[in-house]
Amino acid sequence: MRIGIDIMGGDFAPDVVVKGAVESLPHLSAGHRIVLIGDKDAALRILAKENADPAHFDFVHTTEVIQMGDNPYKSFSKLSDSSIVVGFKLLKTKQIDVFGSAGNTGAMMVGAMTVIKALKGVIRPTIAALIPRSEGKYSLVLDVGLNPDAKPDVLYQYGIFGKVYAENVLNYQNPRVALLNIGSEPEKGSLVVKAAYELMENNKDFNFFGNVEGSDFFKESLPEVIVTDGFVGNILLKQAEAFYSLVKSRNIEDPFFEQFNFEHVGGTPVLGIDGNVLIAHGISRELAIKNLILQSVNVVNANLPEKFAALFNEEK
Amino acid sequence: MRIGIDIMGGDFAPDVVVKGAVESLPHLSAGHRIVLIGDKDAALRILAKENADPAHFDFVHTTEVIQMGDNPYKSFSKLSDSSIVVGFKLLKTKQIDVFGSAGNTGAMMVGAMTVIKALKGVIRPTIAALIPRSEGKYSLVLDVGLNPDAKPDVLYQYGIFGKVYAENVLNYQNPRVALLNIGSEPEKGSLVVKAAYELMENNKDFNFFGNVEGSDFFKESLPEVIVTDGFVGNILLKQAEAFYSLVKSRNIEDPFFEQFNFEHVGGTPVLGIDGNVLIAHGISRELAIKNLILQSVNVVNANLPEKFAALFNEEK
Repeated sequence: MRIGIDIMGGDFAPDVVVKGAVESLPHLSAGHRIVLIGDKDAALRILAKENADPAHFDFVHTTEVIQMGDNPYKSFSKLSDSSIVVGFKLLKTKQIDVFGSAGNTGAMMVGAMTVIKALKGVIRPTIAALIPRSEGKYSLVLDVGLNPDAKPDVLYQYGIFGKVYAENVLNYQNPRVALLNIGSEPEKGSLVVKAAYELMENNKDFNFFGNVEGSDFFKESLPEVIVTDGFVGNILLKQAEAFYSLVKSRNIEDPFFEQFNFEHVGGTPVLGIDGNVLIAHGISRELAIKNLILQSVNVVNANLPEKFAALFNEEK
Repeated sequence: MRIGIDIMGGDFAPDVVVKGAVESLPHLSAGHRIVLIGDKDAALRILAKENADPAHFDFVHTTEVIQMGDNPYKSFSKLSDSSIVVGFKLLKTKQIDVFGSAGNTGAMMVGAMTVIKALKGVIRPTIAALIPRSEGKYSLVLDVGLNPDAKPDVLYQYGIFGKVYAENVLNYQNPRVALLNIGSEPEKGSLVVKAAYELMENNKDFNFFGNVEGSDFFKESLPEVIVTDGFVGNILLKQAEAFYSLVKSRNIEDPFFEQFNFEHVGGTPVLGIDGNVLIAHGISRELAIKNLILQSVNVVNANLPEKFAALFNEEK
């Protein structure tokens, strides 16, 4: 397995990215190779400083960088020797099995949608995030920002993505898929959510739990998968992050709240495309990069694009 | 000023409602009369137990009760001598200046919309809630559940409601009105929110701040008024309540988090109707009822329906 990591992406690149890769090494199997994509000289310098043997890594040297504030589309088409563009080329040509970056999120999405592309039958790919619901347990929330105007059939497909991810990456058996709503009754909610409920009720693709509300969060009983549009999911996730910041700013030390720290999770998978792409937070430090790499292994092993392709072709 | 309180509404009625009314007395002025609406015998029994002089109160005896789980429309039309129906009659005929209840929320909304009715020019009335942003400071979020499919012109009117409420009830000078979105840039978000941004930009009715995100919550810098549709606002508010429950369940004592306790606020005002209606949480205890009554005084003094009527007539 070849794990491609953009060492130029993120607020603290390349140092923390290379260091995070070094920290992940003890947890990887013999067959796992990390491919460091970016300025090779910089990578070698950081490895030397860390007393890490460069032989543990493969390198793909690039000469350009898409900066965090760059226009995603313009920079992606202009900076063809940037670590992000090269990373997507390597993924497309199967020279790497997964590509992860803490760099420009928009440029990562451009690569995911235009180079790797949506799988046949997928209306809209999505991005997912984990929210803690008890010690060591998480629920997968999707979408968290890609499609603010998701239609009922799109929400239905999110249910399938979520079920497959929860089963194969998070190892939850027969995960329950819930619809985020403003009441538990089927007749509650927006027009789109009411229509999505009708599609999901009695469906055969996943174990539909029914509606959950904002008040059901952080409880162990929360279903394993929460489906919502990218507008609501993004606001929900960011409010949870704001809550974590608040807890930290009040100097409260509590292991449960540490689960809100995104660094323990890794990155956000892009689901429904024909390849494995993980997007990490721009403020990722070593721990987040290490977990991004370990998560990559689970994602590759789950064979998500193949599983999705089989499911969505069946549907058509 | 006559403050009508439904003593039969809420999970702990009538005891905690009458007790809360007693607790509010020391904080009211001489000209403020509380009108206890419901079973007068029960009220007198509770007052006797509390050693409170019934002469402090007016009473309107009712013989029926709309239960918490009753169908709002059916019960409102059938139970004409219930405390909620009678309360709305008293408000409509100006025998009370404000009506508050911790009872069946749906029935309260039926009364607000069918007896008191929307003001001329108001597309959709709304309900608002307070979310803490620093010690002693709150932001008003609206809508928090009434209109899950609010259109851009409805969101615009929320901006006006919010500005007037924040200025006249919360006493914030020139409050900033923000649009809740998934990015700070104007071109971000759902179709509805992008259109609402265009309406709000350069408007003359309120001080438009621009977009805020979920990550901006709980910070002192958060604008005083946050506009969103009832779907997003409801989920946001309930997630904030879930945080508070989580903090309590972890036995964390911190004054900031106590501000999340709805009991300190009182009720949820219904804005855009031709009268003053406050809806309290079903699980309200004495403290919440006391604050509901104190909030009622501020709401009546603010003359919101008159102010809204003037503003919305101007607009037409």
